[in-house]
Amino acid sequence: MIKNDLLLKALKGESVERPPVWMMRQAGRYLPDFMKLKEKYDFFTRCRTPELATEITVMPIRQIGPDAAILFSDILVVPQAMNIEVEMKPGVGPWLPNPIDSPKKVEQVIVPDVNEELGYVFEAIKMTKQELNDEVPLIGFAGSPWTILCYCVQGQGSKTFDKAKRFCFMNPIAAHTLLQKITDTTIAYLKEKVKAGVDAVQLFDSWGGLLEPKDYQEFSWKYMQQIIEALKDEVPVIAYGKGCWFALDKMAKSGAAALGVDWTCEARNARYLSGGEITLQGNFDPARLYSKPIEIKYMVNDMIKAFGKDRYIANLGHGILPNIPVDNAKAFVDAVKEYKE
Amino acid sequence: MIKNDLLLKALKGESVERPPVWMMRQAGRYLPDFMKLKEKYDFFTRCRTPELATEITVMPIRQIGPDAAILFSDILVVPQAMNIEVEMKPGVGPWLPNPIDSPKKVEQVIVPDVNEELGYVFEAIKMTKQELNDEVPLIGFAGSPWTILCYCVQGQGSKTFDKAKRFCFMNPIAAHTLLQKITDTTIAYLKEKVKAGVDAVQLFDSWGGLLEPKDYQEFSWKYMQQIIEALKDEVPVIAYGKGCWFALDKMAKSGAAALGVDWTCEARNARYLSGGEITLQGNFDPARLYSKPIEIKYMVNDMIKAFGKDRYIANLGHGILPNIPVDNAKAFVDAVKEYKE
Repeated sequence: MIKNDLLLKALKGESVERPPVWMMRQAGRYLPDFMKLKEKYDFFTRCRTPELATEITVMPIRQIGPDAAILFSDILVVPQAMNIEVEMKPGVGPWLPNPIDSPKKVEQVIVPDVNEELGYVFEAIKMTKQELNDEVPLIGFAGSPWTILCYCVQGQGSKTFDKAKRFCFMNPIAAHTLLQKITDTTIAYLKEKVKAGVDAVQLFDSWGGLLEPKDYQEFSWKYMQQIIEALKDEVPVIAYGKGCWFALDKMAKSGAAALGVDWTCEARNARYLSGGEITLQGNFDPARLYSKPIEIKYMVNDMIKAFGKDRYIANLGHGILPNIPVDNAKAFVDAVKEYKE
Repeated sequence: MIKNDLLLKALKGESVERPPVWMMRQAGRYLPDFMKLKEKYDFFTRCRTPELATEITVMPIRQIGPDAAILFSDILVVPQAMNIEVEMKPGVGPWLPNPIDSPKKVEQVIVPDVNEELGYVFEAIKMTKQELNDEVPLIGFAGSPWTILCYCVQGQGSKTFDKAKRFCFMNPIAAHTLLQKITDTTIAYLKEKVKAGVDAVQLFDSWGGLLEPKDYQEFSWKYMQQIIEALKDEVPVIAYGKGCWFALDKMAKSGAAALGVDWTCEARNARYLSGGEITLQGNFDPARLYSKPIEIKYMVNDMIKAFGKDRYIANLGHGILPNIPVDNAKAFVDAVKEYKE
């Protein structure tokens, strides 16, 4: 029995005194203690060492006080497990020395035994659950197949992911084969996460908003829907799509417990587009955490009023930026906790 | 009297046999002849030499056949004229060695005499108009003040323009001073462009969609509105905002002759959000030009059907990508020209 069950209640659509709050990337570089570990251990060592992943996951709970923890990991551990080399280059970000840029290379991508390849994640979940001692729920996550494909094909981050799109538009059959392999791996991966103890999962479709609505359905949503379908009876699923306002109507009918929206989709539009029934999560502009704490508190209050306290999870609209002052992050969380109707 | 007046008719909302077509960045790197000039002359030499700017502007008219020319130039010639150093670094893009990252630096930014600083642009317009010989209209353009500020503060391109946003949110007074200086310069600049002979102008708000709706009104739209207000009685203004679907209602009431939309905002949504009366421009996904020409033609046909042939200007949803085959660009233009109800 989890003591702080605000998030789980919001995911069920139950009424709450105030909305739950957490922040995407809350276990991140804005925390000085995180930076200390970052200096000592490289990125994937932190992901692969359950003790470190646990320490990092719990860090914001102790220091900032959100209502949920999210396991420290990365969406790219999935392609790593699929036999695709992924590095994290300082100053560059994700770096794939051998991008999947031909149909031939898609054939070489495997659907792995997730317990063999990703056992360290499930270990980290068990360890984190122990450490959290049922204070707050633990969220597990995965990237959407489209977003994973973007990195696999492009080989690195990009403003337009033009190579990834070109690959899909010129080789749709190979693209769908790759997307299905990622989907199958992701379903197995998330099911094991649930077995290991996560209380909710979030799918991150960070680059879905680069596609036009028809292509979004074909190359992204179709696969997210499969994952939601496979998971929804075991665990509440939060589907987050950056820039995917145009798909909220379909997303709302998917069986997802909640939909994450970014800051360009104001509450009124998000409620309207999603049909008004489903729990929504978001959508503070991460850059607005540069404002003074007092301003942040006013803006958070306005945001909650606009979404309404029920069927709502306060969050940022994307991940917290690396150089946000801790006090500002705390002001965000505190503002939600202090909310009164 | 311009022979091909399809664009001007569409901008007036008059009925046409088929929609006009042009492509953002149509005078660009996908053209082999452009690449030849690029090897010989650096970016700003091409902008500053009226003969070269004319040659490049007319190039796609001869080779691809769109219904309008758009002057070869760059939105960053405006900050250059304002005493801000701007370079174009190969492989990086815009590079500002001394970003405007403090209120103090904003004070040093000048509102120049545009004839002194940007006379080369007006020369290029006159020369291009002669060369075009009234075959098709000539579009002039400017960046939105917000988009210009993004580069001035960030110092280079960015996925999030987090430094630019931080500057605005931490120093709103200085930000507004800078935005007003850019606005005043842009109005004077565009008025001179009209005098020199452009038949329409487009404002590019490429990064407006990074702001949440309230911040968009405050830091971007307010200034675009000033520019439109100052220009609309002299020339039709096209207001393009990437990712600005949420502001289409206000934009439609601004006096702009047309609104440009990106590919995430499908025709039905764009018509609905903009109130159904104003001419719309867009919105083919530039990456969809990687598809086979036959597919492109089908998709263009669907796009025109969805927008309707009247009060519509066929275009991409953002600039054409550098490595699109010329035949594919031509297929796009031809598909519009071949359109029959």
